[in-house]
Amino acid sequence: MLHAVVMAGGSGTRFWPQSRRAMPKQLLPLTGEQTMIQQTVARSNGLIGPEQTWIVTNQLLAPATQEQLPNVPAKNIIVEPCGRNTAPCIGLAAIQLLADDLDAVMLVMPADHVIEPDDVFRAAASLANQLVDDNSDRFVLFGVPPTYPATGFGYIERGVSLAGLEQCFEVSSFREKPDRDTADEYVRKGTFYWNCGIFVWRADRVLAALAEFEPELHSSLMVLRESVGKPDWEDQLAKLFPEMKSISIDYAVLERASGVAVVEAPFQWDDVGSWQAWARLRDSDGQENTTSGTVCMVESQRSIVSTTDDHLVALAGIDDCIVVHTPDATLIANRNDESAVRTIVDQLGGSGLDEFL
Amino acid sequence: MLHAVVMAGGSGTRFWPQSRRAMPKQLLPLTGEQTMIQQTVARSNGLIGPEQTWIVTNQLLAPATQEQLPNVPAKNIIVEPCGRNTAPCIGLAAIQLLADDLDAVMLVMPADHVIEPDDVFRAAASLANQLVDDNSDRFVLFGVPPTYPATGFGYIERGVSLAGLEQCFEVSSFREKPDRDTADEYVRKGTFYWNCGIFVWRADRVLAALAEFEPELHSSLMVLRESVGKPDWEDQLAKLFPEMKSISIDYAVLERASGVAVVEAPFQWDDVGSWQAWARLRDSDGQENTTSGTVCMVESQRSIVSTTDDHLVALAGIDDCIVVHTPDATLIANRNDESAVRTIVDQLGGSGLDEFL
Repeated sequence: MLHAVVMAGGSGTRFWPQSRRAMPKQLLPLTGEQTMIQQTVARSNGLIGPEQTWIVTNQLLAPATQEQLPNVPAKNIIVEPCGRNTAPCIGLAAIQLLADDLDAVMLVMPADHVIEPDDVFRAAASLANQLVDDNSDRFVLFGVPPTYPATGFGYIERGVSLAGLEQCFEVSSFREKPDRDTADEYVRKGTFYWNCGIFVWRADRVLAALAEFEPELHSSLMVLRESVGKPDWEDQLAKLFPEMKSISIDYAVLERASGVAVVEAPFQWDDVGSWQAWARLRDSDGQENTTSGTVCMVESQRSIVSTTDDHLVALAGIDDCIVVHTPDATLIANRNDESAVRTIVDQLGGSGLDEFL
Repeated sequence: MLHAVVMAGGSGTRFWPQSRRAMPKQLLPLTGEQTMIQQTVARSNGLIGPEQTWIVTNQLLAPATQEQLPNVPAKNIIVEPCGRNTAPCIGLAAIQLLADDLDAVMLVMPADHVIEPDDVFRAAASLANQLVDDNSDRFVLFGVPPTYPATGFGYIERGVSLAGLEQCFEVSSFREKPDRDTADEYVRKGTFYWNCGIFVWRADRVLAALAEFEPELHSSLMVLRESVGKPDWEDQLAKLFPEMKSISIDYAVLERASGVAVVEAPFQWDDVGSWQAWARLRDSDGQENTTSGTVCMVESQRSIVSTTDDHLVALAGIDDCIVVHTPDATLIANRNDESAVRTIVDQLGGSGLDEFL
């Protein structure tokens, strides 16, 4: 049976000051009425029920996450005692799913991406599920055709087509975040996809691959598996999880395993990785300004302003600016400096202002 | 006897959003712990008592003004029914002062300028008072030696020295706000002063000059004078004042009268006419940034930031910017555009956002 596994423990800083340590991007309604994690869960409605929906998050975020997803059973909220990258995260989900369903297939999704339309996504997830049903050894990834030479994503190079299947390919190679020239080349070639971090595979298969490639990590998971659903679960988790190797599923499994396939994503995808990306998803005015809330602009161009309805932000003679107003902090950053928000967040942490993080 | 007449009815927009219609610059602590009007009144403490201190303001501002100046008698708060420029304002004060003191000398001061040090100012006001005692026909102005070729002030050209008096001169001419080249010339010549709007003269003398140069305005004032201290004062004021000619005391009297003298101001003076001027009065950091409140700046230069202690403003990669945070509105303006704040205020008024004015 197909299960959704939503990776929701991230505490990204790129949406500061809107996102905070205790209220990161996935818990915010950045791109609609629903929060990003609500959109993510709703996206597979009809294909996957709430009993088969699993959320992996952390202790700080678990209460708000459960509150935002009242239909997801409490036992399906998996709480990592600390962050250990995606391989332990997915392993943790796999041992829980298998306790319910020995034939569990995992649809692994980040909690904070924008994907549209939902029905196209569901059809694509069904197809991937079918590919795994057809061949239980398969690891299926979704690849997004690049629309510009992004340097912030990993790329997947496609190989030969899977027999009889449109837009499904063997993976030829994985490429880490490229420099600009290399990214240009990838876009030109047309055989490279963005790795959007959405995966489909059998839970037992991913554990078997971990046994093969990361035996220590796998051993810890197997010890922990003995406690699934038992009173000592939390104690064992707190003891074993922090010692697991912090490694991504890409390094641990995908770049090493055979049977890895990539399906060209038929849906629109955006990781909404920055205020600049947020603005790309919204309408802009004739001056290329993108605004949300009560904003007054005079002689200002190419700026991004986010405020509330009851707090006015007024810009005069300012171009290429990001302004984000929140009740206790306001950011004003150069739109053309992609690292500006991170720089500010680092600075705050180091200067006694971490109450604002 | 010397009386202080503080002109405090202004509702300048240049400090928006810190200043508002109902809380303009003179009622704000922009340059210290006290508000500007409190500083203005305190400045003549010891020279002029509260019974001889008069405030001319408007109906909207009168309650807050009285609250900020608890020592000034309520009867000394003169409430204009509408704004009518400085000649009617000063005439209104003159008829009130004369009801108490037929020999009243008026030290007329704007409520929202920074002057330092206070004791030097008091000594200068005493000297001016002496000049008027010596010659009851005199109108004494203070002239501030220009420190840069300002185009936003009127200038006073000095003439011959007053016999036996250092730094006291006849006025040779008044010059309106000059263009930049003309202002350069004024600064080079060394015989021009900024007109800082601080005047000393006898109340009866200024009324006599109004009788000579603006007889209609004077007639209205004389009718109104009959009601000073009487039950029909407010009715008469509401009836007569709005019909008075809206004209500055400079045009109405000073540019036409004889016996106008200028004393070179021995004190530091700043009209704090803009956020740029506000910044000049404060310390800046090594990047020429001036800040107030909780501010974090990364790779930002020559910027001015005003916020509160409990609301963080973070700037990253932004130069030459004015940022003013208030609870319900935030301004971000180009520091090099002196008219930016006014432009925003005009825009707000015209776009249904006047609740923020």
